[in-house]
Amino acid sequence: MQNLISGGYTGTIYPIHPHAKEILGKNCYKSVLEVPEKIDIAIFCIPASIVPRILEEVGHKQIPGAILIPSGFAEIGEVGLQQEVVRIAHNYKIRIMGPNIFGFYYTPKNLCATFCTPYNEKGGIALSSQSGGVGMAIIGFTRSTKTGVSAIVGLGNKSDIDEDDLLTFFEQDKNTQVIAMHMEDLKDGRSFAEVAQRVSKHKPIVVLKAGRTNLGAKAAKSHTGALAGNDQIYDAILQQCGVIRVLSLNNLLEFSRGLQILPTPKGENILILTGAGGSGVLLSDACVDNGLHLMNMPEDLNKAFKKYIPQFGASGNPVDITGGEPPTTYRNTIELAMNDNRIHSLILGYWHTIITPPMVFATLLSETIEEARKQGIYKPVVVSLVGDIEVEDASRHLMEHNILAYPYSAEKPVAVLGAKYQWSRFAGLI
Amino acid sequence: MQNLISGGYTGTIYPIHPHAKEILGKNCYKSVLEVPEKIDIAIFCIPASIVPRILEEVGHKQIPGAILIPSGFAEIGEVGLQQEVVRIAHNYKIRIMGPNIFGFYYTPKNLCATFCTPYNEKGGIALSSQSGGVGMAIIGFTRSTKTGVSAIVGLGNKSDIDEDDLLTFFEQDKNTQVIAMHMEDLKDGRSFAEVAQRVSKHKPIVVLKAGRTNLGAKAAKSHTGALAGNDQIYDAILQQCGVIRVLSLNNLLEFSRGLQILPTPKGENILILTGAGGSGVLLSDACVDNGLHLMNMPEDLNKAFKKYIPQFGASGNPVDITGGEPPTTYRNTIELAMNDNRIHSLILGYWHTIITPPMVFATLLSETIEEARKQGIYKPVVVSLVGDIEVEDASRHLMEHNILAYPYSAEKPVAVLGAKYQWSRFAGLI
Repeated sequence: MQNLISGGYTGTIYPIHPHAKEILGKNCYKSVLEVPEKIDIAIFCIPASIVPRILEEVGHKQIPGAILIPSGFAEIGEVGLQQEVVRIAHNYKIRIMGPNIFGFYYTPKNLCATFCTPYNEKGGIALSSQSGGVGMAIIGFTRSTKTGVSAIVGLGNKSDIDEDDLLTFFEQDKNTQVIAMHMEDLKDGRSFAEVAQRVSKHKPIVVLKAGRTNLGAKAAKSHTGALAGNDQIYDAILQQCGVIRVLSLNNLLEFSRGLQILPTPKGENILILTGAGGSGVLLSDACVDNGLHLMNMPEDLNKAFKKYIPQFGASGNPVDITGGEPPTTYRNTIELAMNDNRIHSLILGYWHTIITPPMVFATLLSETIEEARKQGIYKPVVVSLVGDIEVEDASRHLMEHNILAYPYSAEKPVAVLGAKYQWSRFAGLI
Repeated sequence: MQNLISGGYTGTIYPIHPHAKEILGKNCYKSVLEVPEKIDIAIFCIPASIVPRILEEVGHKQIPGAILIPSGFAEIGEVGLQQEVVRIAHNYKIRIMGPNIFGFYYTPKNLCATFCTPYNEKGGIALSSQSGGVGMAIIGFTRSTKTGVSAIVGLGNKSDIDEDDLLTFFEQDKNTQVIAMHMEDLKDGRSFAEVAQRVSKHKPIVVLKAGRTNLGAKAAKSHTGALAGNDQIYDAILQQCGVIRVLSLNNLLEFSRGLQILPTPKGENILILTGAGGSGVLLSDACVDNGLHLMNMPEDLNKAFKKYIPQFGASGNPVDITGGEPPTTYRNTIELAMNDNRIHSLILGYWHTIITPPMVFATLLSETIEEARKQGIYKPVVVSLVGDIEVEDASRHLMEHNILAYPYSAEKPVAVLGAKYQWSRFAGLI
C-alpha cells in the first residue's frame, strides 16, 4: 500500500482487509465484493492458504488480473494449492502473475505494485525476473546507474503469465526499447522461441538463464519449482531466436543499459583509438572475444591520423596516440574518427596522464560527441578509462552524457558493444 | 623527482642535469660521475637517443641498476639502439629495467620511481605490468579499493629484467604475499615456467596475458615489440606451473585482492547461505563454473539449520533462509556455519529486505566474523549483495572489515573464491 501510494499511482486504490477500517488514510473494505466501482487489478499480499478463497471473490467481482505476491505454493511442494489457484483463475478468466513474486512495476503509470520501494528512473528497459532477489538487484543497479526502466516484473512460479506473455506486451509497448529477462526455466520453450524470434527483430532481448549447471538446476528446483532442463537445448533455442544470452547478472544489467544507450551501428568497421598501447592490446583481444571486426585502415585515413600523432605513435588500428599528448590531439583524432563515415564504431582507450587529465578528456569527449550529434552523426562510442581514481569521476561524467564508459576495465565496454552488434546483425540492420 | 620526494623516500636523491643548478631544492650535478657518494640506482627520464651515452657514465660510476623510463626503442623498430643499451649494460654489469616503462614503486621503502603520483596503500600484493597504462590502472584501482600493494613494476620492452627476475625477487620478499602480472609476451618461457612453478607453491601468481588473439598479438607487436606467440602454448605453460590465468584486467585486480584477503580454506566443503532463492541458483551456477564443490549436507547440520529458518525455507545447500527473516536468523545461521568445522568456506547471498536492511546485515556479519576470528576460526567468506543502492555502502563496510563483498554481482565473489581454491590445491594446502 505504501509503495503504491508513494510511487505516485493516480488511479484509485482500494485496501481490502477483514478488520481494518482504514489503511494509510484510505477507506478499507472487507472484501472486493463490497467495492462499488469496477476494479482493474487485485494485488495479493496475504498468506498462501487463503489465496484460493479470496481469488474466488476476485472472480465474482470480475477483476481481470491478479498479482500473487505470496510464496508457499509449488516452490515448496504445495503443487495442489497452486493447481487450485490456477483452476479458479481459469474458471473466472482471471490472468494471474505469480505466485511467489515481488510484484510488478510499470513506470509510465507510476504503478509500483511491489514490495520494493518506488523510484523514478524512467526509461526504455523492461526487466523481468523469476526471482524477487534478482528483481531487487535490478532496482538497485538501475537506481545507482540512473538506467531508465519502463517495467520491472516478477514472474516467480509462472502459474499463468510467463515470458512469452510479457514479450507480447513489451513488443507493442511504446515505452519499451530493450527487454531483459532473468529466468530459471521456460514452461513452454516452443511458444517462447516463436514470440522471441519475432520480437528480437524489433527490440533486443537479453536473457540470463539461471540453473545452467547441475547444482544451479538443483537449487532452482527448490527455489521456484523450476525444472531447469538441458542447458544445451536452452542455448540452441536462445541463439536461434536472436536472444543475447548472458552468463552473469552483471552483464544482464550492463548489456541492457548499453543496448538502450548505444545508437545502432551502420556497419562492421570498428576503430580503436587509445593513449596507451597496452590498453590497445587488451581492447583488441576483447574485440576478437566479442566477434567484433577491426577496420582495415585505408591509406588516406592512416595519413590523416599520422598528421596528429607523434612519430613513435601507431596509426594502424589501434591508433595509438601515445601517452604524452595534449587535449588537442585527443580532440583532433576523435573528431576525425567521428566524421569519417567509413568508421562505424569507436572504442576509446584512455590512459590517465598529467597532460590530459581524466576530466579534461571526459569533457572534450562529451563536447566532441555532442557536436557530432548536432550534425546528425550517431555512432556507437564506448570508452575504457584506465588510471588513477579520477577516472571514476570521468566515467560518471561520460555516462551522464550518454557515452558508455567504464573505469579499470578494458573488457566491459567492448562486451557491451559486442551485444549491440550481435543484435544489430540479427535484426538485419547491418 | 617530484614523485620520489613526495613519495617519502628517505635515501638521498641526486638530480643529474647538464645545466640546472638545483631541482626541487636539491643540488644538481652535471653527470653521475660528479657525485661524490656511491649510488644504488639510476633513473632515466631523458630522450632515448642519449640513453647509451649516459648509461656509459652510469657504468663508469659502477651503479648496479638502471631504470629506463624513455620509449623510442625496439617498440618503434629502433632495435639497434636497444641492442646498444643492452651491450653497454652487459659490459658494466648494470641490471636494467625497461626501456619503455612507467617506472617502479616499492612501497615498503616509499620508493616511487615512476611517473605516477605516490600513494600509501601498503600491503602484500606485488604487481608487474608490461604496459604503463595497465600499471596506471593498477594504481587507481588499488587506491580506490584500498588494496594494499608492496610493489608496482613496469617491464616494458624487458631488454634485461623480466618476469622471472621479478618472481625470484618477490619469492623471498617478506612484504609480498601475492604476485600479479600483466604480460604481452615471455622472452624465455622455459625459464619463467621453472621459476613460476617453484614460486607458485608458496605464493599465488595471477597472470593476465594480453595479445591472446590474432588482433591483440598484432597490437602487442606495435606496442612493446612483443611477439605474443601461440596462445595455447602460453595456456599450457601457465597451467602447468600453477599460475592463475585471468582473461580480463578487472579479474587480475580483483583476484589479487581476494587472494590476499581470503584465508586459506581447510578443505573443499563450501556452503551457500542465502536470503534469496534466486541468488542461490546463480551462486550455484557460479560454483560449478569456478570448479567449487558444494558440500553434501550432513543430516545433523541440516536439522540444525532447520531450527532457525521458516518451514518454507530450504536447509539443503544452498541454505535459503528466505526473504522475510530478522537479523537474528542471519546471525544464528552464519554463526552455525562459521562454527561447524565441516564447512570450509562460506558464500553468502544477501537479498535486500526491510526487515534486515543492508547495513544491519553488514554490521552483524562483520561482528560475527570478528567474533569467530577472536576464537581462532578463519575460513573464506565471500558475499554477494543484491538490492537497492544501500547494498553499495554495505559492501564497502564489509570490504573495510576484510570481508570480500560485491554489490549487483553473483559471479564475482564466487570467481574470486575459485581463484583461492585453485591456488590452495596447487600449493598442496587442501
